Amino acid sequence: MTRVGILGGGQLARMMALAGAPLGLHFRVLDVSPEACAAQFAPLIVADYTDREALARFAEQVDVVTFDFENVPAESAQFLAERLPVFPNPKALAIAQDRLHEKTLFRELGLGTPAFAAVDSLADLRHACAEIGFPCVLKTRRLGYDGKGQYRLKSEADIEPAFAELGRVPLILEAFVHFRREVSVVAVRSRLGAFSAYPLTQNWHADGILSASLAPAPHAERLAARAFAAAQKLADQLNYVGVFALELFDIGDDQFLVNEMAPRVHNSGHWTQEGALTSQFANHLRAVVGLPLGSTELLAPTVMLNWVGTLPAREPVLAYRRGYFHDYGKSPRAGRKVGHANIVADNLPQLADALASLGQALDRETQIAPVLQALRS
Amino acid sequence: MTRVGILGGGQLARMMALAGAPLGLHFRVLDVSPEACAAQFAPLIVADYTDREALARFAEQVDVVTFDFENVPAESAQFLAERLPVFPNPKALAIAQDRLHEKTLFRELGLGTPAFAAVDSLADLRHACAEIGFPCVLKTRRLGYDGKGQYRLKSEADIEPAFAELGRVPLILEAFVHFRREVSVVAVRSRLGAFSAYPLTQNWHADGILSASLAPAPHAERLAARAFAAAQKLADQLNYVGVFALELFDIGDDQFLVNEMAPRVHNSGHWTQEGALTSQFANHLRAVVGLPLGSTELLAPTVMLNWVGTLPAREPVLAYRRGYFHDYGKSPRAGRKVGHANIVADNLPQLADALASLGQALDRETQIAPVLQALRS
Repeated sequence: MTRVGILGGGQLARMMALAGAPLGLHFRVLDVSPEACAAQFAPLIVADYTDREALARFAEQVDVVTFDFENVPAESAQFLAERLPVFPNPKALAIAQDRLHEKTLFRELGLGTPAFAAVDSLADLRHACAEIGFPCVLKTRRLGYDGKGQYRLKSEADIEPAFAELGRVPLILEAFVHFRREVSVVAVRSRLGAFSAYPLTQNWHADGILSASLAPAPHAERLAARAFAAAQKLADQLNYVGVFALELFDIGDDQFLVNEMAPRVHNSGHWTQEGALTSQFANHLRAVVGLPLGSTELLAPTVMLNWVGTLPAREPVLAYRRGYFHDYGKSPRAGRKVGHANIVADNLPQLADALASLGQALDRETQIAPVLQALRS
Repeated sequence: MTRVGILGGGQLARMMALAGAPLGLHFRVLDVSPEACAAQFAPLIVADYTDREALARFAEQVDVVTFDFENVPAESAQFLAERLPVFPNPKALAIAQDRLHEKTLFRELGLGTPAFAAVDSLADLRHACAEIGFPCVLKTRRLGYDGKGQYRLKSEADIEPAFAELGRVPLILEAFVHFRREVSVVAVRSRLGAFSAYPLTQNWHADGILSASLAPAPHAERLAARAFAAAQKLADQLNYVGVFALELFDIGDDQFLVNEMAPRVHNSGHWTQEGALTSQFANHLRAVVGLPLGSTELLAPTVMLNWVGTLPAREPVLAYRRGYFHDYGKSPRAGRKVGHANIVADNLPQLADALASLGQALDRETQIAPVLQALRS
C-alpha cells in the first residue's frame, strides 16, 4: 500500500485520488483551504505550504509527495525532499515556477521561445521594449496563471502604466507572438526515464482561461513529432518524473515556440480521461509511485469543454452516447474552474456533429464555435 | 447536489462512489463493519441494517438510497422507502432476496428456469427429489451468495445429510442443469422506464466464486437477444430502477434457463469499467438519481479476471497497453474478493494473446485457461 501525499487539494488532486483508488493507492492532501474539493475523497490537512511543522507531519503520513499546485514554495518542496521522495523533483519545480528560468532553460536546450528579457526596473522595461518591440507582454516571473499577472503593451505609452501595475515583483518582458494556434504536449516520464507523450492537443482560451481542447490537434503530424522531441529533451534534462504539459505556439511550417511548462497534470490533458487508453491522472500516479506507465494512445477523438464560473445542465452531455461530465464539487464563482465535459466520437465528422448539437443544447455556442471551425477545417 | 446513500460498504459501494464523483454526487455509506472498504472514499455510518435509529439518521443525510448488498432486510428497505426514494424498490429487492419468490416470478413471466420446489421439511425434500430427480441442488432460499448455502445431491443417500446441513431455514430444491456455459445479462432501467442491456457476458466460476468474465460472450447473438427481452420483461414487471444482473444457463440452441437475479451492480459487469462506453456503476447512479442513462455499447472486447483471496503483482497487468487494475483496498483473506483486472483488446485474437501472456506472468494459467479456450473456439 503506497500512500501518496498531494500538496494542493483542488480538482487536480481530486481527480488524482479518483484515478489512484483502483491502483490501491491511499491519498492525503495538504491545502490552505478547508474547502479544498479533493477533501471529499482524501483526508485533508489544512495548513500553509510554508508551515514546517505541518509539512513534517504530512511527510510522516505518506510515502511519496506530488503536487496539484506548482506554486508551492521551492523551499517547502526541498524540505520534504530531504525526508521522502518528491516528484517532480524540487529543482524541476523551481525552474517551472519562474518564467525567466524556464525560458532560459528552453533556450539553452535549443527550443525556440518568444524573445524575452528580464525586467527588474522601469529602465530595464524601457530597454527591453526597445529591443523586443511592440506589441509585447509584461508578465510576473512567478505565480501567474490563467492570464493573471500579465499586461499587454502596444506602444511606449504603455510602459509606465504596465510597470506601475506589475513592477513590485520580478518581471519578464516577452514578444507578442502572432501564432496560428495554441497547442500543448501532455507527456509523462517514469522514475526509470521512460517517456511517453499523449497526442498533441489544440487549445482555446477565453479571458485567459482554457476554454476548450481538441485531441488530436488536426493537421499536426510533423509538428507533433518535433514537439514530442522537445518535451522529451526537457524532461530528460530536468530528470522529471510524472506528467507535465508544454504549452506551444504553432507559428506555421511545422515550427513552434515554447510558451511555458506546467510541472503537473494539466487542464489541457483532461480529455485523456475518456479519450486515451490511460488518463493523465493515472499515468502521473503510475510514474510517481514507480508502476509501469500506461499507454498514451488516443482511444478516439475528443473535445474537452471547460466549465468556468458555473456548471451547465449535465443532461445534454450525459444524453450523448460518448459524453462524460466531470463536476469538481466546488461552489460556483466567476472565473473559477468548476468542471468539464469530455465529448468523444468515433471520428471527426461525428465529433463535429455532436459538438454542434451540444453547443445549442447547452447554450454554449460561443465556446464551441472555434473548436467546430478547427474540426471542419 | 444529490446525496446518495448506499446500504453496504463493500467494493460495489466503493466503485459506485468513485464513478459518481465526476457526476457531482455525494455519498454516504451504512455498513455493519468499520472496515468497510468504501469508507476510504465516502463517509461511513457503522450500524446494523436493522437499527431503526441509524436508518432514520441515514435517511436524513441523503436524498436517495441504493444498495451494495442485496440482503439488507426488506423491512429496513421499506422503513427507508417511507422516508425517501429507494432504488431498486423494496418489493423488487424482497423478491430477488428469495430464490423461491424469484423463480416463481420467472415462471409467471414465462421465463425458463431449472425445475424447482419449496422445501420446508425432510418430507418436502424427499417428495421434491422424487419429482425433480438427481442430481439436484438444495439451496437456502435466502442469504446465499458465491456458492454458500448450497448442497449438491447425487442420490437418495444425500437427502438426510443435505437436510441436516441446511434444514434450519426455508429451502428450495433445484434440478441440476447440464448447461453449456454460464452467461449473464447486466442491464439498467431508468426511473422513466428506459431499458438498456450491456453485451451478454460469459462467466466462469471457481469454488462457487466468479473467476472470470468475457464480454461479449462469443457466438451468442440470438441467445443475447432472447436474454435481453427476458431481462426487460422482468425489470418492467418489478418497476426496477438501476442496474441488475440476470444469471443464465446457456443450454444450447439459443435457449437458456434463468438461474437468479442480482438486484444491484454485479461482479459480472465489472468489465464495463473499461470495456463499455459507460460503466455499470455510472449507469446505476444515473438511473437512481434520474439522469439520462449512458450507452451500454461495447467499447472493445474485454476479459475481467477476479482476484480472490490475494492480489497478484499489478505490474504485468499495468504493463499491458489496455490492462487496468482494480484494487478494493481490502486486506487479503481466503475466499474474499479483493480486486480484479480488466484486460481489453482491439479484437479477439489480440485479447487471447494478451491473456495468454498475462496468465504466465501472473502465474494464473488455471484461471485463464477456460477463457482462452472460449476465445479460441
